[in-house]
Amino acid sequence: MSLYPQIKKFFLGKSLPTSAHSEERLSNAAALAVLSSDALSSVAYATEEILLVLVAAGTSALGLSLPIAIAIIFLLGIVVLSYRQTIRAYPQGGGSYIVARENLGLYPGLVAGGSLMIDYILTVTVSISAGTAALISAIPVLQSHGVLLCLIFIFLLMLANLRGVKESGQIFMIPTYAFIGSIFLLIAIGLFKNSTGQVITEYPSLPVTEGLSLFLILRAFSAGCTALTGVEAISDGVLAFKPPEWKNARLTLLYLGVILGLMFVGISYLANTYHIVPEEGQTVVSLLGRVILGTGPFYYFVQIVTLLVLLLAANTSYGDFPRLCYFLARDGFLPRQLSLLGDRLVYSNGIVLLSVCAGILVIIFKGQVNAVIPLYAVGVFTSFTLSQAGMVRHWFNEQTGSWHASALMNALGAITTFVVLIVIIYTKLLLGAWLVVVAIPLLVSLFALIHRHYQYVAQRLSIQGIAPRSYIPRPKPEFITHPAVVVVGQLNRGTVEALDYARTIADEIVAVHVDMGTTDREKLQKKWRHLESDIPLEIIGSPYRSVIEPIVNFVSQFEEHHPDVFTTIIIPAFVTRNWWDGILHNQTTLFLKNALKAKKSRVITTVRFYL
Amino acid sequence: MSLYPQIKKFFLGKSLPTSAHSEERLSNAAALAVLSSDALSSVAYATEEILLVLVAAGTSALGLSLPIAIAIIFLLGIVVLSYRQTIRAYPQGGGSYIVARENLGLYPGLVAGGSLMIDYILTVTVSISAGTAALISAIPVLQSHGVLLCLIFIFLLMLANLRGVKESGQIFMIPTYAFIGSIFLLIAIGLFKNSTGQVITEYPSLPVTEGLSLFLILRAFSAGCTALTGVEAISDGVLAFKPPEWKNARLTLLYLGVILGLMFVGISYLANTYHIVPEEGQTVVSLLGRVILGTGPFYYFVQIVTLLVLLLAANTSYGDFPRLCYFLARDGFLPRQLSLLGDRLVYSNGIVLLSVCAGILVIIFKGQVNAVIPLYAVGVFTSFTLSQAGMVRHWFNEQTGSWHASALMNALGAITTFVVLIVIIYTKLLLGAWLVVVAIPLLVSLFALIHRHYQYVAQRLSIQGIAPRSYIPRPKPEFITHPAVVVVGQLNRGTVEALDYARTIADEIVAVHVDMGTTDREKLQKKWRHLESDIPLEIIGSPYRSVIEPIVNFVSQFEEHHPDVFTTIIIPAFVTRNWWDGILHNQTTLFLKNALKAKKSRVITTVRFYL
Repeated sequence: MSLYPQIKKFFLGKSLPTSAHSEERLSNAAALAVLSSDALSSVAYATEEILLVLVAAGTSALGLSLPIAIAIIFLLGIVVLSYRQTIRAYPQGGGSYIVARENLGLYPGLVAGGSLMIDYILTVTVSISAGTAALISAIPVLQSHGVLLCLIFIFLLMLANLRGVKESGQIFMIPTYAFIGSIFLLIAIGLFKNSTGQVITEYPSLPVTEGLSLFLILRAFSAGCTALTGVEAISDGVLAFKPPEWKNARLTLLYLGVILGLMFVGISYLANTYHIVPEEGQTVVSLLGRVILGTGPFYYFVQIVTLLVLLLAANTSYGDFPRLCYFLARDGFLPRQLSLLGDRLVYSNGIVLLSVCAGILVIIFKGQVNAVIPLYAVGVFTSFTLSQAGMVRHWFNEQTGSWHASALMNALGAITTFVVLIVIIYTKLLLGAWLVVVAIPLLVSLFALIHRHYQYVAQRLSIQGIAPRSYIPRPKPEFITHPAVVVVGQLNRGTVEALDYARTIADEIVAVHVDMGTTDREKLQKKWRHLESDIPLEIIGSPYRSVIEPIVNFVSQFEEHHPDVFTTIIIPAFVTRNWWDGILHNQTTLFLKNALKAKKSRVITTVRFYL
Repeated sequence: MSLYPQIKKFFLGKSLPTSAHSEERLSNAAALAVLSSDALSSVAYATEEILLVLVAAGTSALGLSLPIAIAIIFLLGIVVLSYRQTIRAYPQGGGSYIVARENLGLYPGLVAGGSLMIDYILTVTVSISAGTAALISAIPVLQSHGVLLCLIFIFLLMLANLRGVKESGQIFMIPTYAFIGSIFLLIAIGLFKNSTGQVITEYPSLPVTEGLSLFLILRAFSAGCTALTGVEAISDGVLAFKPPEWKNARLTLLYLGVILGLMFVGISYLANTYHIVPEEGQTVVSLLGRVILGTGPFYYFVQIVTLLVLLLAANTSYGDFPRLCYFLARDGFLPRQLSLLGDRLVYSNGIVLLSVCAGILVIIFKGQVNAVIPLYAVGVFTSFTLSQAGMVRHWFNEQTGSWHASALMNALGAITTFVVLIVIIYTKLLLGAWLVVVAIPLLVSLFALIHRHYQYVAQRLSIQGIAPRSYIPRPKPEFITHPAVVVVGQLNRGTVEALDYARTIADEIVAVHVDMGTTDREKLQKKWRHLESDIPLEIIGSPYRSVIEPIVNFVSQFEEHHPDVFTTIIIPAFVTRNWWDGILHNQTTLFLKNALKAKKSRVITTVRFYL
């Protein structure tokens, strides 16, 4: 009892009062760092995922990665423009769950919520795995400890978020801008060295395992679409901007689109020019770094910065997932515990849930980014589609200002993301996407079940129609008003005090003792008659040596004979000085209470004797 | 709640009534099988352990194993003759704990008890490891799964014993006599083939890692002394024999000594003649079998029978260990739970404890017999010495019949086993015996601590000097006789009923509600005034969002204002229909009860509302 709080305090710090809650407003540059690390960091793995699909058709197919990347940039443009409309319409922050629920109804909202939950978990898994891959690329000796490293990173993120990391723009800006800067520098050096012909590379000859088909190209496209994950974060966090919030948010979203697009297409172009083929234990960015920069300090800088930005990306899920869980729990679709602020003013239960789920996925998929990728993006594009479709409905309901243009933009967004969703499911279904396709409806059913349970409880506990208590005359039974059963193990000081207590509250008392075959009945009765002559003692035999069952049966019968009144079941318990002394005694009290609960006994009183 | 009993019933069978307890009486032949498998089975590893020590001094030293074995047989003779005296003096069964405690006093008794506990655990570890080694010798492909096999065997023994294996002589006789028969047959064939010169072997040349010294010879002797473990079992189980019990037991012990001695010296002789050198993955018996019998059916028969007899040997510990724990727990030296008969009339807790300890040792020592051997025998010879010394004292107290001869025999036994104990500790101390040398006093201290705790509890709970309850007039306080605090989360049906109950037992009631910053205080007070106007409602603010602390503090203050009376703390709780529904609700009730326990609140009443 006294150790746990100390450990907790050491790791998480002191409790914070509710009044310490406050929101920081971010400059646009800081907001880009805080809200967009998820989107930006996908540059670290998106190109690689495209190449990993194409390489099945041989090195000649790898050239297709550039047009695919450009198509994805085009898609990015549509999504960015579409979300700019959302920001205008929801200046308070319009997450997919809220937008879909308000405009499309309950179930689309829940589908959006469920998809987002899954995706936030996968964001942690993918980002941590990719970050670890960047680290391992730089330090290959760590290769056999990938899963362990991932789990350590998740644990550290969990601790940091349980402590309550303020999303402090200043600190977040450093790795994000270092990442952006170093990727652009890498691209620039790469372009320069290539144009001056300093580095000459060629594709190795690789076995062709699959013919080049439209399906393969679509699959590569689907794999690359993971670059778009996290784009919606700015529209969720409009309130974090300085006023005028929505205008700043729109502008920042545009910047994000441009920066992400340039980095993605730049890396994809270089991967082509430098004939990069994905290989085990080396990320594409690392391979590019090695060939362009050698293994000098700047190469290691790029890798470390990539790891850091991916940790930040995972960290954004630690803000978004618990907040989404809070919304769902507040509305009664998830367990209430997820809506409670912890000691450090964060939704601790959501943070732990996210960490456990992400950790399990890391273990199942062995920390391999490309093993998880087929699951990723299904959720994102589901929530994209629902959110954009909700916006179309929104504009038709509102009909204010230039709503025609906005509706058209959102409709384009909705249709495009829906088509991409179909493509993603079609091409990756058998690779693992089916897991998500199955999980979303399961999650929505779970939401509905939980909601039904809470409604049932509320209805059963409702005080509607109950008469005011003190005004009604309570019925007075003729004989007994308040019976009590006292459970007697041995006749000791604790039992004596419990019987004393029983006398103060009850007017019919019976004591019950179970003889497992080891009681000297005569001796016990004699002692009893001496000390407690006013209370009858029932001794019940127990041929099967169970204490619990005979007592529970006795109590049941007793309660049947005393209907319409509360029967108090009094259990004397002695409390040892330390928990370890407790090991030396039977846990009968606990089992007895559970058994009485199963038999629906109403009133159970523990009279404790402190040693 | 409903799943666990079913699983338990499936594995362990139905509960048995206490009256089903009965004892089977065994013929001498059956008793030899039941009680002596531990002693007899040590033939499977004792010779090997001697050779494993000697081989360090090169193959020329291996010849010393025969004289060492003969010395051990000599020792065996002394121990057997000495224990025959014990049987005569304790026809009810004289385990070392009982003999040492009765004759030498409490602490020697506890040392004997602790030594035996350790040794029973080691018997399981060694026997199971040796049995697995026999199996692996026959089927080398299993070699990498040794630890797993050991754990499976332990688990099966545990299940079988939790079900309650009747020590049915008939079934036990088969593997034991098959083992005895096949070892004698192996020896006979080996002698015959050797005398006819059919098999010619030579020692391979091996590196000499250690010079031949007296210390090495003594160490080999110590290793071989493990052959004597289990010899005391017959003297513990005298009551299992047919009348006249003690005479039959004495005779059987003599048979055991002769059979064990012949097998041991036979195997040791053959190992010399056939130039056996211990090797990884093959036991000495298996090597002998392979060279004498080839790998025909009889070879496999020997290996399987060896495995079975070793499983039986481990099984005897499953009888002895829980029984010893029962004695120690009954006398208050071990937790009471170890003295309770389980559903199947066995000491279930002792069985589980033994399995867990043996399993841990198997894992630590990786299931290697020769890694555990240095720990073994320390306990046995400690309890031998104490038991024989106790017998000497016994004879001097009794002075009946031919007590002089018996006392002399026991004195010889005590001195011899004591000298051997010193040799064992001296030669194996650094190899692992120190663990046992440290563990025995630790265990005895633990016994003493536990005993002190139980004495303290008994004294605190004693009813000595308490006046008969109903005769003394209880003091009547002037104002309040019985106050109650009702904890209110929400004002719902459950709370209303708890307040109704409070009115039936208390004459001063106060309700307390904690506002974590989310309560609409005005609305709650209004509803309260409407429904429960006769009871005041205190609303306490909680800036740190804890529910528990404010309530506990309130209750503490309230109890301070009401000294000398029982304050009932009433906690309304609602019980969900299934345990999984319970996950959806906070566990505040449980935490609150624990916190109140820490604050030493005396009377806590739960009023349950069943959904």
